[in-house]
Formats: sequence, structure tokens, C-alpha cells
Amino acid sequence: MIIKMSVNVTEQEISSVAERVRECGCQPHISRGVEYTVIGVVGKVEAFARLEALKAAPGVEDVVRISHPFKLVSRQGRDTRTTVAVGDVIIGGGDIVVIAGPCSVESREQLLNTARAVRAAGATMLRGGAYKPRTSPYDFQGLGVEALMFLKEASEETGLPVVTEVMGTEDVEIVSEYADMLQVGARNMQNYPLLRRLAKANRPVLLKRGASATVKEWLLAAEYLLAGGNSQVVLCERGIRTFETDMRNTLDLAAVAFAKELSHLPVVVDPSHATGRRSLIPMVSRAAVAVGADGLIIEVHPEPERALSDGPQSLDFDGFADLILRIKEPMPGLATVGVTA
Amino acid sequence: MIIKMSVNVTEQEISSVAERVRECGCQPHISRGVEYTVIGVVGKVEAFARLEALKAAPGVEDVVRISHPFKLVSRQGRDTRTTVAVGDVIIGGGDIVVIAGPCSVESREQLLNTARAVRAAGATMLRGGAYKPRTSPYDFQGLGVEALMFLKEASEETGLPVVTEVMGTEDVEIVSEYADMLQVGARNMQNYPLLRRLAKANRPVLLKRGASATVKEWLLAAEYLLAGGNSQVVLCERGIRTFETDMRNTLDLAAVAFAKELSHLPVVVDPSHATGRRSLIPMVSRAAVAVGADGLIIEVHPEPERALSDGPQSLDFDGFADLILRIKEPMPGLATVGVTA
Amino acid sequence: MIIKMSVNVTEQEISSVAERVRECGCQPHISRGVEYTVIGVVGKVEAFARLEALKAAPGVEDVVRISHPFKLVSRQGRDTRTTVAVGDVIIGGGDIVVIAGPCSVESREQLLNTARAVRAAGATMLRGGAYKPRTSPYDFQGLGVEALMFLKEASEETGLPVVTEVMGTEDVEIVSEYADMLQVGARNMQNYPLLRRLAKANRPVLLKRGASATVKEWLLAAEYLLAGGNSQVVLCERGIRTFETDMRNTLDLAAVAFAKELSHLPVVVDPSHATGRRSLIPMVSRAAVAVGADGLIIEVHPEPERALSDGPQSLDFDGFADLILRIKEPMPGLATVGVTA
Amino acid sequence: MIIKMSVNVTEQEISSVAERVRECGCQPHISRGVEYTVIGVVGKVEAFARLEALKAAPGVEDVVRISHPFKLVSRQGRDTRTTVAVGDVIIGGGDIVVIAGPCSVESREQLLNTARAVRAAGATMLRGGAYKPRTSPYDFQGLGVEALMFLKEASEETGLPVVTEVMGTEDVEIVSEYADMLQVGARNMQNYPLLRRLAKANRPVLLKRGASATVKEWLLAAEYLLAGGNSQVVLCERGIRTFETDMRNTLDLAAVAFAKELSHLPVVVDPSHATGRRSLIPMVSRAAVAVGADGLIIEVHPEPERALSDGPQSLDFDGFADLILRIKEPMPGLATVGVTA
Repeated sequence: MIIKMSVNVTEQEISSVAERVRECGCQPHISRGVEYTVIGVVGKVEAFARLEALKAAPGVEDVVRISHPFKLVSRQGRDTRTTVAVGDVIIGGGDIVVIAGPCSVESREQLLNTARAVRAAGATMLRGGAYKPRTSPYDFQGLGVEALMFLKEASEETGLPVVTEVMGTEDVEIVSEYADMLQVGARNMQNYPLLRRLAKANRPVLLKRGASATVKEWLLAAEYLLAGGNSQVVLCERGIRTFETDMRNTLDLAAVAFAKELSHLPVVVDPSHATGRRSLIPMVSRAAVAVGADGLIIEVHPEPERALSDGPQSLDFDGFADLILRIKEPMPGLATVGVTA
Repeated sequence: MIIKMSVNVTEQEISSVAERVRECGCQPHISRGVEYTVIGVVGKVEAFARLEALKAAPGVEDVVRISHPFKLVSRQGRDTRTTVAVGDVIIGGGDIVVIAGPCSVESREQLLNTARAVRAAGATMLRGGAYKPRTSPYDFQGLGVEALMFLKEASEETGLPVVTEVMGTEDVEIVSEYADMLQVGARNMQNYPLLRRLAKANRPVLLKRGASATVKEWLLAAEYLLAGGNSQVVLCERGIRTFETDMRNTLDLAAVAFAKELSHLPVVVDPSHATGRRSLIPMVSRAAVAVGADGLIIEVHPEPERALSDGPQSLDFDGFADLILRIKEPMPGLATVGVTA
Repeated sequence: MIIKMSVNVTEQEISSVAERVRECGCQPHISRGVEYTVIGVVGKVEAFARLEALKAAPGVEDVVRISHPFKLVSRQGRDTRTTVAVGDVIIGGGDIVVIAGPCSVESREQLLNTARAVRAAGATMLRGGAYKPRTSPYDFQGLGVEALMFLKEASEETGLPVVTEVMGTEDVEIVSEYADMLQVGARNMQNYPLLRRLAKANRPVLLKRGASATVKEWLLAAEYLLAGGNSQVVLCERGIRTFETDMRNTLDLAAVAFAKELSHLPVVVDPSHATGRRSLIPMVSRAAVAVGADGLIIEVHPEPERALSDGPQSLDFDGFADLILRIKEPMPGLATVGVTA
Repeated sequence: MIIKMSVNVTEQEISSVAERVRECGCQPHISRGVEYTVIGVVGKVEAFARLEALKAAPGVEDVVRISHPFKLVSRQGRDTRTTVAVGDVIIGGGDIVVIAGPCSVESREQLLNTARAVRAAGATMLRGGAYKPRTSPYDFQGLGVEALMFLKEASEETGLPVVTEVMGTEDVEIVSEYADMLQVGARNMQNYPLLRRLAKANRPVLLKRGASATVKEWLLAAEYLLAGGNSQVVLCERGIRTFETDMRNTLDLAAVAFAKELSHLPVVVDPSHATGRRSLIPMVSRAAVAVGADGLIIEVHPEPERALSDGPQSLDFDGFADLILRIKEPMPGLATVGVTA
């Protein structure tokens, strides 16, 4: 942590800041420059949050944190990457895990048909919403427990483990009974009571990145889970909110590579929510695999044009089968220069 | 709602879309243009969410919703604006309500001293965090019930009603016992289980705008409260997240005027979180009042440089007293042209 | 400037970085912490740009600049604020300067009528586009020199000095003949050949903030003008681009206060482009004045619904007269607490 | 184009809008709904810009454009994609074109060494800045004509065609003498005098996306080039500006797929500016190829830690060779489900 003193700082102000640094258990290193005096602070991460308040102290111009505030999710000092087992499926083990299914579970038939179709095309896990966070209170809010039962049945029939969203602490227990993995939606990435509850759940967690969360904030949300006792965490990039409106969100694939550089946790990508446009999903899925994602989560519906939610971004069965083929296609070659050097 | 068909649409596709529109209880109006065919849809807002899925239907290029999806928070068809009573204080009644206090309640003494100071300077309500949503699990998380008891004591002594944040459904009951108004933080604006629970609470709600929420999404979050039975809602603009990083958020004061144009609910402004810089808060508060805000919520701390949270954006007692004076200053005059026409 | 070394840095890497710092004429201060070693760099701003490349040196984790990179626009070390004279009008002198006129000059009659109307209502300067930057090549591109002649005539008749946009270096000379102040549009804020040319022009410059420029980048664009010899610069905040789409841009009024804290230059506000919605302009103008802006620039058109550009955000003559009245209205009072302490 | 009338619209207002629509050469189709009346407008794109002003007409609530405003860059009605020849190199022909070289040309030796190294590793074109747009006037601004001569020499020796940025209209002629392709930088994407001048240049153009430009605005900037007579245009995605600050920009790879869906022009990707972090560039380059990009443009420097610009995002020679190998690596396989259905 660096404390930059203002141009007209007094010796009294410098000592007072240095004393406060020591009071919080850290060491100050004072560098006096021609233009500015700077105090480097060395110590425990825990103290830094309190020392940020020094930005308000007399004589201080700015306080800059330069160390990462997360510890357990960090790759620093770890040799191996985490793998997360969901039923028989391993996420982060090298092969790409494809999670597919409808945005919302709408009926037993819709779900079973979808589960069979995605299984046949090559999916490894089943998704489907039972409790739906909807921007408008007048939109379809999900079938709840009934949907959970259909998911369980579909899972048993197809052998695909199930992931589904849990929206509040009160639903963690019931959802854990039926589902193999619990999803935290983008709107709940910083719902701390929910994260603290999931840290005690006996299920792996799929943690979506918030629509306006930086990569480091996303990792800090994961830190809540690990610090609370649950290390079975998979991160999910699903696009961030930007000024571009022709796509639903802006998919941040560099963030996948960056999150894997900073953390040992696996990362999957949700191209359905990220783009909101069916036609783009196959090529974007390919790119997600190429950038190093450990898996994909894709919305599939028997009749997208009749879906109760997210129809425009849902693939039908043929579209999903095409996506799987597209992912397996070889990459194009490099052009060569005509002249020999 | 407008459905734009693609250039090569067939008659069959047009009829099929029109039929689906009727199936959902709406009327299709087909306009055939030189370049495009467009289907206007007329009907109930509830059906529109389902019809958006038609974006996935063959022959459809785009689906555009043109009506507002909120009903109860809308000003349309209402003659009067809502006023919200918090204890003896009326928000939305014409006079500016100033809510002030520490980011976090840190001790009995800190809170009582602050409450007395802000009361003396002109504050009308007291704020203070008991449960704190913190980006890092290693930061101070609030004193919980103990803080609630200090808030109650401070309120009784000073006569200032109290607003404090409630982070999860499990805390609504206990917080309602001690506080006069319940705050939904920016991270929880789309925490629907919490909104549904607060709709049944017997307390007015202060609903902060999410850091990446549009004005209409913010109003739809309020719609959850009104639709669930609680019409005592005050909106709070606290800055949105943008590329500008020298300020903590970008305060969107035009959104205050826009929210008041669309809705009958009162709107207050939080310049402390919006800017994150103490020096800017007085002028920005003045602007908030000028744009039509019904109140301000300001962070004040006896010693900002020792605050356990948000020190850099907290005013000390003198700073808060200056802010009150600054708000009361008359506006500058207009320049005039030297030449007479 | 602070150089943060990585956890496993070697002594060799530290010396090598320190040597490079000295090579560029700066002094390194090495602080060895428990977790990290940090090198503080003291020296001239000019060297810092080159030292940023050390981010790529072995053993370096990050390089953080903590000093402002602008010098001439900075308030540091200056006692007085700049005032800019445009004809008889003084911008930055304490009174609010209202600049008004059509987005585009469309005809002699349209301009003269508008100039007379805004003059009568209280405007102090005239605006009007002769060369128009348009997103589509098929949109109206401005009347060019003919428009400049109309502007000159309108200025002579009404006594209002004129500001108009200059889009390229090749137009600076001709526009300078007809206009009193040259505007750099938001799209051109970082058009450096244009800034360098305007630094040599004999006219004051109105520098709009780019739609995705930080406050500091905006000040650095102004630094090009001052460094090149033109210190008659007025900054103009006109909204930034964010995810909110119901308004054309997000007006950043805190940036006005922040720019005035960092710089001695005057700042005016353009609520027309910032909001894109006529109904919001009066209240937002009031807020701009309250936050400390030195002036306003407002689009006015005799028949906004027939304007060739920016009709939706143009006020008609009555609307503009109302805006002037609204700005002069006193601010609302503060609520008081019913209970006496 | 759709005109949505307000709830209390009068018949008089409807006729008046319809008349204005006809006056501009378009046909109005009026649909009267239960809640709203909507007027569909059919006609020429050119008229729509003028009709947008109707947003300001009495009785109008909103005006929504639903057709694409670009014509020549659109894929609609075209069977083939454009290929662009730069010397012997074909962009858009199926093979990936790798353009590499330093951010700035700093010396003859630096450039020649880099050109040889990237040629040996597999690059097909050479990049290098002669005129540099720099945020600060105190940063290195490029060697100008001298740099152009070095580029020409390096091109002749290695057989790699050259692309370099042109910052203003006054440089188009001289740069065209030395370079094979002219680059429009992100800051100049909407510099219309420059685009109009380049439309008349006898060289292909590399058009970077502006940091806050939507995909459609980017295509409209290209439309200026095509409409002016130059159809040899390659688009370049280089990241957009968002709230995420740990990477220099947010690379929008879905935009590559989307631009190729909307337009017949080739698209290349610049992962150096997009991420600003060397370590991420190889994986992100791979993703760019996978999503369908026609090429890559990569910054390479002999000693990134001494670069005069963009050192932190420049690869050294080994790093660039590794990137080429990484692009050619096969993609990982899909996981399979343990249970047989």
C-alpha cells in the first residue's frame, strides 16, 4: 500500500500518518522526493482496509493498494489448479464440459425432451431454472420445487448431473436435495448472506460474474465461499454490461484468461446470456474454448420462439448439435508471405 | 410491441407470428413496407414478456418493446406524487430531507456523537450501517444487533428517525424492530427474495439504484415492492459504474429528473458513494437539490481518517456543517450581453 | 511513480530496474516488505512515460503512476482561475454565460430568428453548427461557409459572440474569420493534429469532453492547447457514454466540480447532448449552475420537430425562455425535525 | 421506423405527424391500440434521419429506428465477402494474416531487427507507428517521415507489406508513398474529414473500432469510406472501454462475429491494445482466430521494458514466436458422460 502525501504536507502530518500505520500493525517506509513524499506501507492485508481511511487524513493526497486482496482463490503459492467434481463430471480436468438445457424449466415434457437431446448431441451436464430472477415482477418466475423434481428425474434418466440457480438462503436446503451443483446468478454475485450460506452447503457452486463486477471483485466473491469452507467453486463469465446494446452483454473472454492467471479455480463461459443472439453462440463458444475456458453453459429449448424466458438466445436441438460440431472443427491456418526472405 | 420481419420473410412466417400473437391474447397489426414488413402488437403488458421469444421465430429480425413495463410506480394516470413518512419526517413533501450519519456504526460513543452533531447542523434523519456488504470477506462486516441498539438510542435522544441497511430476508424482522426505514443497498437492488419480503414489511423502504441498473430497471425493482403491497418507497440515486475511476461512481443527476418524470415516488441522492471524494460532496449536494431531489443521504464520521469503512468519502462534523451552509447559498446570477439589441 | 516487484523477484532484477530508473534521470527508493518489494520513483513527469515500460521488465508486477501528468492546466501552484473573453463576454468571471442556438444552421431565417429569440430570453452567446460531424454519411452535413456567414450576420445584429465547431485543421482559418470561439467536438477531443493547430489559432477554444474520456484525459487534451500556446480554453462537459440508453449520454456533473478542483480553466455544461431529452434540460441546467459550472450551452430551434439534426433535444423559443426562468428560481428549503432535542 | 404516440394524443396530432412523414417522402401506417397508437413509417433511409426530429413533435412519445442505417458495408443482398489485397497478402481469403511490429518505430535498427524476427516466426505483414496519437503532449510523438523510410526499407528487405497509422488529412499523401495500408486509429474512427480523405486515397484502410463505438457506429464509419469510393476496408476490433481497469480495454470478440454477420468486410483483432497485458495475448489471439477473425495485429519489440510506448503490452521476439505456436495448437476435446443412456 502506498500513501502519497500532498505537495504542502507538513512534517507533523507525515509523522501522524506513520504513527497510524504502526498502530494498525504495519510498517511505514518514507520516501521524500523533489515533488512528493510517499509512504510505502508493508503489513497484513487485513490492516489495509482500515488504512484506506487515511485518504481522509490531513496532508494525504491519495492511498493506492497494490497487493491483491484475495488469498485463498489466488494461484500465488499453489502448484496445482482446482478440479471440481459434479457427479461423475470433472470441471477443470482438461476436457471441455458442456452444460446445456432450458433457461426455465417449463414442464416435465419440455425438460425431459431437452435433456435427451442435449445428451445425444454431446452435453455433459444439464441446466434449467427452477427459481428465476426476473427484472419485472410480471414475468414468469419459475416453477419452484416442481421444476426441481423434473430436473432430478431428467438427471436420473440421462445420467447428466444438474446445476440450477438458488436465489436466496431459504432455498439452499431444498435445492441441495435435488441438484448436484448450485448456481449463484449474476445479480447475486455480491449477495453476501447467500455466499456465506453456500460456503456451508455440501454442494459445488457455479459463481456467475456480476454484470458490472471487475475480475478482482468476482474473485473476492469466490473468496467468501472458500473462506467460509467451500472450495468446490467454478467461476462463470457471462458478459458484462457496456454501452453496446445490440448484444445483451459484452462477453469478456480476456477475463477468462486473466481469471485463470490470477486464480486456481476453473472457469466456464455462458455465451447465451453474454450475447443474447442465437446466431453468434456457436462461434463465440469456439472462442471460449480457445481462450482456455473449462466448459460452456448453453441455453437450449425445444421451441425457442415459445420459451417463457430467454427465447431469443436459446438454441433449438439442431442448433445445439451444430454448435457441438462447430467446436470440434479445426482452426484455420496462417497465411504465408509470398516472398522468400 | 413491434415485430420487425426479415427481408426474405415468407407469408407463412408472417401468419405464424400473427397467430402466436393472438394466442397470447394480443392483436397483430401488419404493415407491409417496400423494404420491411412490420407487425405492431397491441395488448397487455403481461403477454409481452412471452412474445419477446418471437425474436427466435423464423422470419423475425427483431422484437422491440415500446411500452413501459411498470405500472404501479408509473406517474401515468396519477395526479399526485407519493410522500413517504418516516417517523415525523416527510420525504417528498417539498422540503429537502437531509439524512446523515456514519457509514458503519462502530461504537456507541461514535454514533451518539455523530447523531448529535448532524442534528445540530440541520440533519433530519440518522443513517448508520449495522450489517455491511463488503467486497472482501476480510473487511469489517458491521456490529449487527448491537449497532441496531445504538441506533435506537441515538434516535430516541435526538428525535431523528433512523434508516439502516437490511442485507437479507432473515434480518428484516429484527431490523424493523429498531429502525424506522429499511435500506436496500445497491448490490441488492435485484435481490428478489429480499424485495418480496420487504413488500410485506411494515416499514418504508429506501431503494438504492444498482451500480449498473438503468432507470427503468430501478423502477421495476420498486415495482416489486409496490406490487407486493408496500407503497412507502423512496428511490436513492448513488452513482453508476462507468469507465471513470477517479471518482468512485458517476453520479447520474439527470436520472433523478428522469425518475421523477416517469414515477410518482420521491428520490433522494447519495453524493458520498457517488463521488467517493469528500471535497466534491458539498457542490454535488447542491446540484442534487437543484435538479429536484427530495433529499440527501450523507456519510459523516467524527474522525474520517480512522473510519472502519468509507473514510475517504466521509465528512467530519465541520465539513457537514459547511455542506448545509453551502446548500443554502443563493445561485449565481446570469451574465448579460454588453450590447443592447 | 511506484514499481511493485513480484513475489519471487531476484536481487539482480531489482538492481536492473533501479539502474534503468537512474538512466532515465530519476531516483529509485527501494522498500523491502515482508510480502513485496516496492521501488518508489522520484523525478520528472517526462521520464515517467518511458518508465511505464518497466511493467514489461523481469521481476516487475506492476507500475503505478501517482502524480498528475498535466502541468499547465493544473491549479497546483496557481492562485487565480482563468477567465476567457469571447467578444465582450467573460467566461469564468462569476456570472453564468448562456450560449444558445440551433444544432445546425439550416437557413438564414432560421438562424436570425433563433438568435433574436435567445437574445431576448437572456442568452449571452450564440451557437450554431456549420460543419457537422454525423454518424452516418447519409445525414445532413452542414451548410459550411454559407452557415458561417449567417452566423456572422446574426452576431452583428444581436451583439452575441459566436461559437461554432471546427472539424479539421483545414477549416481553422476560415472558421476563425467568422467565429469568435472555436469548438472542438467530443469526437475530436483526442484529434491531436487539430489540437496542435488550434494551439496556434488566434481564438479561444471550447473543448468538449470525449464521450469516453476520463476527466484527466480531458485535461490532458487541454494541455495540448496550453502547451502549444493557446491558454484561452473553456472545458465543456456534455455527458459520457454508459449502459443507460434512455438518455443520450450520462451527464457527469461531479466531473464539473472535479475538473474545477484540478484545473484553473472555466467549465461549461451542455445539457442538450448530455440528456437528449428536452423535458429534462431545464432541471439539469439548474443543477449544472448549482454544481459550479461557468456556463451552459443549449440547443434551441424554431421548430424542433423539423430540425435537420438533434430535434429531440432542442428547445423551442418558449422552452428556452422557461429554462432561463427556471435557473433563476430559488432553491427549496431544508426540512426540519419536529422534535426539539 | 416506428413512431409511438403518447397516451393522450389527439387526432390532430396524429394527422400532423402523418403529414410530416409524407412530406419527407415516406408512407405512414397508423395502428390504433387499446393503450397506444403507433405509426409505422416506410421509406428511404435518407429520410429517417430527418424524421427522428418528430420525437419533438406534440403527441409523440418516442421514435424508434428499426432498419440498419448502412447500405454499402451491409451483407444484405451480397453473395460474397470482400477480400482486401495488401501487396501480396490477401486479408479475408480464409487464411489468418498476422501483422506484427513495434508500437512506435524508434530507430532503424529496432525496426529492421523486429521485422526480421516477426518474419521468421511467421508474420505476414509489418506494423509500426510513425505518427503517434498520445494522451499526453509530453510523451514521445513518433519519428514521422524518418520512421516511414525505415518501414519502407524493412518492407523491401523482408517482403512484408506495411501498415501504419495516419493521424490527419495532411499526412495521407506522404504516408501513402511509403506504406501499403493506412490505419485509422481508434481515436479517429469518427474523424470525418480524415475518413473522407481516405475514401479518395489509393490504399486499403485498416479501420480501428473506437473505444466507445457500437458495432453499428463502426460500420457507419466504414460506410463513409465505401460511400466515398474506397471499398478496400478492413475492420479492426481493439477493445472497448468499460469499468474493468485491470485490462487496458475489454476485448469484444462477439463483436467480431457480429460485424461479420452484418457486413461483408474482413475483420482483424488487436489483442495488444485490447488487453494491455503481455501474458494474456497468446490465449486471446487463439480465441480471436476461433471466433472467425481474418487476422491479428500484434505489438512486438526487441526490449519491451525500454519501449518508448506500449512496452507493457509488447511481446519480445520469443514471446511472439510462442504466440504463433500457441495459435496452431489443437483445441481441447470435449468431456464425455460416464453413464451410457
